[in-house]
Amino acid sequence: MIAGIIGATGYAGVELVRLLSGHPEIKELALASVSYEGDRIEHIYPNLLGKVSASLTKVEAVIAASDVVFASLPHGVGEPYAQACMDKGIPFIDLSADFRFGDDEATFSAWYGKPYQYPELRKQSVYGLPELNRSRIKALAASGPVIIGNPGCYPTGASLGAFPALAKGLVGPGLIIVDAASGVTGGGREPARAFHYPECADSVSPYKVGSHRHTPEISRNYQAMLKVEQPQPEGPQLIFTPHLAPMNRGILSTIYLPLVDTWQAAVPRSPAPRPPTKEIEEKTREIWECYAEFYRNEPFVRVLPLGSIAATSRVRQSNFCDLSVHLDQSGRTLIVASAIDNMVKGAAGQAVQNMNIISGFDETAGLTAIPASF
Amino acid sequence: MIAGIIGATGYAGVELVRLLSGHPEIKELALASVSYEGDRIEHIYPNLLGKVSASLTKVEAVIAASDVVFASLPHGVGEPYAQACMDKGIPFIDLSADFRFGDDEATFSAWYGKPYQYPELRKQSVYGLPELNRSRIKALAASGPVIIGNPGCYPTGASLGAFPALAKGLVGPGLIIVDAASGVTGGGREPARAFHYPECADSVSPYKVGSHRHTPEISRNYQAMLKVEQPQPEGPQLIFTPHLAPMNRGILSTIYLPLVDTWQAAVPRSPAPRPPTKEIEEKTREIWECYAEFYRNEPFVRVLPLGSIAATSRVRQSNFCDLSVHLDQSGRTLIVASAIDNMVKGAAGQAVQNMNIISGFDETAGLTAIPASF
Amino acid sequence: MIAGIIGATGYAGVELVRLLSGHPEIKELALASVSYEGDRIEHIYPNLLGKVSASLTKVEAVIAASDVVFASLPHGVGEPYAQACMDKGIPFIDLSADFRFGDDEATFSAWYGKPYQYPELRKQSVYGLPELNRSRIKALAASGPVIIGNPGCYPTGASLGAFPALAKGLVGPGLIIVDAASGVTGGGREPARAFHYPECADSVSPYKVGSHRHTPEISRNYQAMLKVEQPQPEGPQLIFTPHLAPMNRGILSTIYLPLVDTWQAAVPRSPAPRPPTKEIEEKTREIWECYAEFYRNEPFVRVLPLGSIAATSRVRQSNFCDLSVHLDQSGRTLIVASAIDNMVKGAAGQAVQNMNIISGFDETAGLTAIPASF
Amino acid sequence: MIAGIIGATGYAGVELVRLLSGHPEIKELALASVSYEGDRIEHIYPNLLGKVSASLTKVEAVIAASDVVFASLPHGVGEPYAQACMDKGIPFIDLSADFRFGDDEATFSAWYGKPYQYPELRKQSVYGLPELNRSRIKALAASGPVIIGNPGCYPTGASLGAFPALAKGLVGPGLIIVDAASGVTGGGREPARAFHYPECADSVSPYKVGSHRHTPEISRNYQAMLKVEQPQPEGPQLIFTPHLAPMNRGILSTIYLPLVDTWQAAVPRSPAPRPPTKEIEEKTREIWECYAEFYRNEPFVRVLPLGSIAATSRVRQSNFCDLSVHLDQSGRTLIVASAIDNMVKGAAGQAVQNMNIISGFDETAGLTAIPASF
Repeated sequence: MIAGIIGATGYAGVELVRLLSGHPEIKELALASVSYEGDRIEHIYPNLLGKVSASLTKVEAVIAASDVVFASLPHGVGEPYAQACMDKGIPFIDLSADFRFGDDEATFSAWYGKPYQYPELRKQSVYGLPELNRSRIKALAASGPVIIGNPGCYPTGASLGAFPALAKGLVGPGLIIVDAASGVTGGGREPARAFHYPECADSVSPYKVGSHRHTPEISRNYQAMLKVEQPQPEGPQLIFTPHLAPMNRGILSTIYLPLVDTWQAAVPRSPAPRPPTKEIEEKTREIWECYAEFYRNEPFVRVLPLGSIAATSRVRQSNFCDLSVHLDQSGRTLIVASAIDNMVKGAAGQAVQNMNIISGFDETAGLTAIPASF
Repeated sequence: MIAGIIGATGYAGVELVRLLSGHPEIKELALASVSYEGDRIEHIYPNLLGKVSASLTKVEAVIAASDVVFASLPHGVGEPYAQACMDKGIPFIDLSADFRFGDDEATFSAWYGKPYQYPELRKQSVYGLPELNRSRIKALAASGPVIIGNPGCYPTGASLGAFPALAKGLVGPGLIIVDAASGVTGGGREPARAFHYPECADSVSPYKVGSHRHTPEISRNYQAMLKVEQPQPEGPQLIFTPHLAPMNRGILSTIYLPLVDTWQAAVPRSPAPRPPTKEIEEKTREIWECYAEFYRNEPFVRVLPLGSIAATSRVRQSNFCDLSVHLDQSGRTLIVASAIDNMVKGAAGQAVQNMNIISGFDETAGLTAIPASF
Repeated sequence: MIAGIIGATGYAGVELVRLLSGHPEIKELALASVSYEGDRIEHIYPNLLGKVSASLTKVEAVIAASDVVFASLPHGVGEPYAQACMDKGIPFIDLSADFRFGDDEATFSAWYGKPYQYPELRKQSVYGLPELNRSRIKALAASGPVIIGNPGCYPTGASLGAFPALAKGLVGPGLIIVDAASGVTGGGREPARAFHYPECADSVSPYKVGSHRHTPEISRNYQAMLKVEQPQPEGPQLIFTPHLAPMNRGILSTIYLPLVDTWQAAVPRSPAPRPPTKEIEEKTREIWECYAEFYRNEPFVRVLPLGSIAATSRVRQSNFCDLSVHLDQSGRTLIVASAIDNMVKGAAGQAVQNMNIISGFDETAGLTAIPASF
Repeated sequence: MIAGIIGATGYAGVELVRLLSGHPEIKELALASVSYEGDRIEHIYPNLLGKVSASLTKVEAVIAASDVVFASLPHGVGEPYAQACMDKGIPFIDLSADFRFGDDEATFSAWYGKPYQYPELRKQSVYGLPELNRSRIKALAASGPVIIGNPGCYPTGASLGAFPALAKGLVGPGLIIVDAASGVTGGGREPARAFHYPECADSVSPYKVGSHRHTPEISRNYQAMLKVEQPQPEGPQLIFTPHLAPMNRGILSTIYLPLVDTWQAAVPRSPAPRPPTKEIEEKTREIWECYAEFYRNEPFVRVLPLGSIAATSRVRQSNFCDLSVHLDQSGRTLIVASAIDNMVKGAAGQAVQNMNIISGFDETAGLTAIPASF
């Protein structure tokens, strides 16, 4: 199979190049780049020398040559290419936000500042978070060429960390907070002051507080998962706060979920906080079992053993999402730590996972690398 | 004046050495170290060569030689030295947790695993967070030799970030969450796997989730500030989650505070989150004014201009606490970002500030360094 | 085939675990660890969860179970295990220095402070730098069970960077300098002050100046390569200076080689240095061609295109050695920049490469990962 | 005194702002910025809030208001401002290369690609490396307004590391190699791909090999110091290789100097390198004494005790140059490690030191900060 990549020289694009070059079902890559048309990918990224060699051509040529097309483009510019792929009858896996919101154009345009160009394409599109949507992805792919709206990086980690609690009725009414820290590759390849080494090294800082575009995507995913088993009248409220941390890859999301009464640990109230009690420990184990059971068959979600805590270093360059499950000392709030590699499970790896699903490949094909220990 | 430092070779100890060596009122240092007795501080820390030269002696000699004593020791071992200082009639500024809880021995012993050794010393001790307690610190110091319970690093950043909202009645019932990331110096000087470079570089991870000892200290501070103007029947619930981030210095705390109805922004409810509206912007400005007004006369708290966001890099090596004020997109939760240098305002700098207060020096003496831009 | 790893929980050991777990010819691992006997590797390294699961047993059990044994042990303790493998008739690939010096026990014991325990084992051992020794490795392996002395990390990068110049007669008499910087994983897994995050972050420093144990290994390799084609009466003098740099993986070696007259660029002498001239450019190209030709068939050495400079980031997690070739502005000294991943080509990867060679596997088996772009 | 800074918003400019704001003789700053004219420095650099407040105006206004002018501009644009200062009769301290080469316009223009605009200004200019030129700086300043050509960052560290050996006749004929690693602030404030966090984090790489503009400046300094006591017919040959290292501040230079026979350690030659002998140790001590004696009265050069090795972390934010002295195992080459903060002794701090000298202030005024331990 020939895979095409549009926007191949961006960070997500070149991560696709790396993953697909090692994919057992992909025999050849066709790469497009507006900025570097006519050049070769291994000149732009010399790390690829001797392993990948491909010229950078026009989008049209890539679509013409490919059996599946990945697009890693700015939001709002890829729809014509999606249409072209549908016309040709091949799948289009889009890493931008254009196809993440399906019918809800209002939310998309409120946050991304533009309307849909080809609204009818949403009939052929599906949100590509397999742990939420696998059956719908498969079903749609079975019916014809499909467009995958590949999830945002933060929504992936935030969603996977909360899904079991939402789906299994652990979460009560109230506010859900997602406090997350991302590595600097999340800002993309183009130099900018915020990502200039001396500005972000040795420092942590939040950004876009109360205003990050991934907020509605996370919220929508939470509601979608709630609906599965027990819709709440009001649905969860959500706050999402991203931070920039001085590392290359990784997103660590710390997720605070209010427990329904029945899932709270029965800790005696005290005027001042007290260290976690045995009840906390027991309830944590029960919740851990929910999580482990929920993800039992998922190839890319690891519910860490009790006592182990998620860290971005442990999922580096892998498609894993690591989860650790904790209770606050009062027993009323579930705290989940979720770690992904923002460029793999948060972008290119998940895109490959989606390709595997819609193509009938083993879902882990090309994604079997073992995360290194350091 | 001669300042004594017990535990001078630990990270907080040597930061005291640095700050006090540049203090206009300190003419000499007397240093004690159990691990390096008989050696010299500039051999242990060659960065001090040519600037500081002092031998490391016994604790008793240091107390005998000094007009004020700082102790940077493990929790639970400094009380006899505090007693010795009281006997001699000189102040004792303690960077451990031993004197942070005053009368509340129950909470101290629940979290630190030991009882008070000299309970009656608490009559002469006061919690040394000047922005909370300045008048009490001064009053107690006026009445005789005083023991300062210098605040923990996380509680300093978390408290300063929430105080104006608590004191001015912005915070309604509900959960307060403090999600914080610390640099690795917070783990101290002794090598350990968690702080081994290859283990913590290029990674973010939470630790002691739901069980960090700074939780009761933050909670107590929040209640103390609430009491000032409007005690709540139940007091705030608190969750505190620390993270380790790959940087040397700094704590970035992101604090989520539920607003009372009257301080919420009147944002129209929508089924999905919407970007921040004009009402959010206006309400943020009102809250910002509260914060600016609250800290108007504080020399070490900077309420950043609207549009600027707290970052640990900007307070590096300074005694500043930088605060930025934000609202979530629903207008119901106040989000404050608070940045300190964990070793300065979070430890040694605040200890010097306390010495200045009890000694009648200018509160900023020895703490006037301008934070570098990188 | 079953591969055994002795010292599996050290950094080089666990990197072997990672690489061998993905090796197409290895069906099972047998792991030994003195420190963690009875535990499981995936508990010590949770990054392996779901990918590798193996208990840690005794050395004897590992040797008994294995078809090939890797040892990642301190210098001077592995010889009995080598003997046991020879007795059993299986190869022993040793990552310590014990078998790097062959007959030259004098040099080994001068630098490592102990004599050989089983001197006669050197008849069955060979230095495992394939680009120097491939035919001898193969020949020895063909004659019976073999012991591989896997090269040191610095000697690997330093040797590969100088070999073509040495072998093809470019290097004249005089001093060769190797100035190298290593990532912190080179210091191993055990916490120590030098590798404590706050001590080595954001800093560069040399260590063991004029006294690093890798000096005689580099020197020996240089002489060995010289001998191949044109022995010099005196042989090269060598200075090797290692530095610690704040990164996890990688060694960047900058190698200064004095050119023989005939290979110098004919640059007009001037009283002050002048920017590189056209002659420099042309001569650089000639030398580049030597390098490219020398390594034409080597699967793991990449002579970068002119204009590209070696960087450790580009070989991260790969078995590549990247070389870039430069001339100083006077045209008299060849400067080669050599980048390897110290844990892969500098340790575990090269060990796997050696296993491939002696086992008759494709030399790149298990080592085909494409280096990531960031 | 009022100090003017032209180019105040660049990295060296804002470091001048920081240092001069804490200078006891400077009462006020006048700042110019082309990029941010009309804005305020504390908006561009919020770390300055509450400590420095100044508007950014035109160059002409700054010169008119100031008693001394610092310029941190690109090479080749500051000469008219130097002329204006001379016309007004005030000193001009230039951080560009424009005045580093004095009469040697040929070398300047060969490397910087432009001729001098006002060649006659060189009569009033002097190279501002106090450890080389202090008496000339003072003499020229005594005769009228002076222009200081403030040294480059690399030349400062490289020169100070070699001066005692050169001046005291330790260095024999042959090649001197300076292999240096710089932090990323050396690349300035403007975002560029090479300094984009994901490109340079966790990696070391050389750049401008054989072609860096600081080469002739280092070479000239070496020759100047040689001339003092024992001119060599040919003068030293020099190779300078800069590297980029993942840290914010600092330059570590490793300098290889060939010793004259009489200063070599009498080490028995051996076919393979041997560990350092007692002779090495003794000769190192002798050389160390030369160094200590040479810099005995220098306030900013620290010759570290034997056994201690220079590290950039120990001079961070200070004007110190730390030197450690080593011999290679053959006893024939002196190896000096030199550490500076590239933004302080390598730029702004040295400029302040020069101002102090020409103004008759204490040479350390405003430069007394103690380097922090981490």
